[in-house]
Amino acid sequence: MTKDNKNFQEQIIPLRDEIDSIDSKILSLLARRQTQVEKVVGLKKAHSIPVYHPAREEDLISRLRIQSQNHDLDPDFMEDLYRVIIRQSRVKQTQKMEHKGVRPNAKILVIGGTGQMGGLFATLFIKSGYAVRILTEQNWNQASDLCHEIDLALVSVPIEKTVRVIEKISPFLPPEALLADLTSIKKEPVHQMLSSHGGPVLGVHPLFGPTLSCLDKQIIVITPGRDKTSSEWFTEQLTLWGAVIVESTTDEHDEIMEIVQALRHFATFCFGEFLCHRRTKLSRTLEFSSPIYRLELGMVGRLFAQDSSLYSEIIFATPERRALLKEFILSLTRHVDMLETNNKQLFIDQFEHVAQWFGPFSDQAMRESTFLIDKLIERF
Amino acid sequence: MTKDNKNFQEQIIPLRDEIDSIDSKILSLLARRQTQVEKVVGLKKAHSIPVYHPAREEDLISRLRIQSQNHDLDPDFMEDLYRVIIRQSRVKQTQKMEHKGVRPNAKILVIGGTGQMGGLFATLFIKSGYAVRILTEQNWNQASDLCHEIDLALVSVPIEKTVRVIEKISPFLPPEALLADLTSIKKEPVHQMLSSHGGPVLGVHPLFGPTLSCLDKQIIVITPGRDKTSSEWFTEQLTLWGAVIVESTTDEHDEIMEIVQALRHFATFCFGEFLCHRRTKLSRTLEFSSPIYRLELGMVGRLFAQDSSLYSEIIFATPERRALLKEFILSLTRHVDMLETNNKQLFIDQFEHVAQWFGPFSDQAMRESTFLIDKLIERF
Repeated sequence: MTKDNKNFQEQIIPLRDEIDSIDSKILSLLARRQTQVEKVVGLKKAHSIPVYHPAREEDLISRLRIQSQNHDLDPDFMEDLYRVIIRQSRVKQTQKMEHKGVRPNAKILVIGGTGQMGGLFATLFIKSGYAVRILTEQNWNQASDLCHEIDLALVSVPIEKTVRVIEKISPFLPPEALLADLTSIKKEPVHQMLSSHGGPVLGVHPLFGPTLSCLDKQIIVITPGRDKTSSEWFTEQLTLWGAVIVESTTDEHDEIMEIVQALRHFATFCFGEFLCHRRTKLSRTLEFSSPIYRLELGMVGRLFAQDSSLYSEIIFATPERRALLKEFILSLTRHVDMLETNNKQLFIDQFEHVAQWFGPFSDQAMRESTFLIDKLIERF
Repeated sequence: MTKDNKNFQEQIIPLRDEIDSIDSKILSLLARRQTQVEKVVGLKKAHSIPVYHPAREEDLISRLRIQSQNHDLDPDFMEDLYRVIIRQSRVKQTQKMEHKGVRPNAKILVIGGTGQMGGLFATLFIKSGYAVRILTEQNWNQASDLCHEIDLALVSVPIEKTVRVIEKISPFLPPEALLADLTSIKKEPVHQMLSSHGGPVLGVHPLFGPTLSCLDKQIIVITPGRDKTSSEWFTEQLTLWGAVIVESTTDEHDEIMEIVQALRHFATFCFGEFLCHRRTKLSRTLEFSSPIYRLELGMVGRLFAQDSSLYSEIIFATPERRALLKEFILSLTRHVDMLETNNKQLFIDQFEHVAQWFGPFSDQAMRESTFLIDKLIERF
């Protein structure tokens, strides 16, 4: 460390410490503020007084803008900041509401309802006024009771257990109950539901992770099995929760998912694994990263923040998937020769062929991703 | 006023007063924070240290998120709030600067100034009051005149022409002129600049495409060649335009770029090429796509919307790059056995090993990409 550098460190550390200490104080004050606001809300509710009044919020903003100027703070900045604080108080109060039920009081059995995805659906059903029962390995001895008069049995268990659980639960189901599953493959589970249960059957695959708090604009694929009319209330409920429903056959679904899920996740896994294998200097690499690379590397990092066994189930789900992934790896070895012979022209030809195949989606993607990168830049 | 109402007023007033007093304290703390931040900025400038670094901001956010939980505050709320605070500090520093010229009227020769990247820099220099001259193949016969008394010669030509152009232009340069290039590799060009030109030399690599209108928060790598002091006005100008400067050696730069550019683009190319090769039904696949997959596929589509020869230059730039890409392909073949033997456990072990290697970046990436997906949902 040079003398100049040491001098800099000596001067900057107390300043940084001071900023950290200010941030801690701000944080405690915000926590205290939250407590006080909750008391006000409680008091208002007890006196049946409307909790929010836009005019009051504007008063607060006006006062803070004036105070800011006395402190040499930008009033617009202070307003932005308090809009975030006010929005947070409001969100905390409204979170619980929403969610109308299509068939409130209908009885729903969620099999695997303590898992992440099962838990999400159980919560959504409860919020919408359904009578939700949860069946897990622990209370399997009560399966018969729990199935009594249910309107829907929703199977949400790991892929490799789905078929067995369907077989086991079917004998307990009322004949007219809707049997549905949330598995990310559809051929086997729907086939099993149709052969084990005589009533309505619906395959369902939510194309999102279980960490969402809201289904708004998320896609759910349904593959109808039997008596579609009897499952319409359920599909309608999914739509009311904000989901977009795409209908498909089990064959088409599974084929597309090989690409959308298995291949994509596997390619991402391979990229991350290679970076790790080579002991790439991740943090230095990030310092060299423009927003777009940060976003792309973020997509890789994102995968590894999630559950390894979930992804192993997705990737290894069927022999078809494993064959596709092998095909992918082997297809890459076709490019070795191009690299060895430094054949740029071949690369350009292939590139343009693919570009043509992507067609208008490329330009669309360019626009969408540019929009997102701008958002990323604005924010970070 | 009813008795109940009076009672309510008596109870609510102290709560409101307390909230007001908390808000005043927060405001003073923010003012103090602003003062401290200004001191840090002053100190950094005095020591020629880049003022902002996105990675440092992410560290702050991560720490505050953890602290929030201890205070029963929503971490997302705290993050939103500090994004506003951080943005404000940054805006305050860059506001005044933007188009200010560090050395207005200095004479700049942009070699390749009608190309995309050269054109972007020419425009930026012109806006900041520099005297800009453009040299291309068409007016090469005027090279000697155009080089007269220039302060900076900026080489912005395709990778494969860079070395030759440097050789050709150097004899015309005033001995004290700064010679810099914008090539995405640095070892060869900087080596060539040092041997052809006796004056100050700086390698520059802007980590973004030429379609930007503003450099705000974009990263530019510099690899000093000779007489760094004489190039400081140029680096300062880049900072004033909003760019984040990262300093490196030519070796380190090229090594990291093998990953950040070559490997990343090549992996994306391979994925797109495989989808095309298999004749995947792209549009149906998109109907089955949750926002995250749409975003990921968009990153692939985006590549193919761009210039094939630019990417061929990036990917095939050096023998080291081609060797790395070959290594990548061969490293994937290691996974064939795991797929053939359906070895989920091996996948899980590798996955967790990589997750550990990614460390806190994974969670950060999860948050960043979730934020973007929300933006995507809001918009589309």
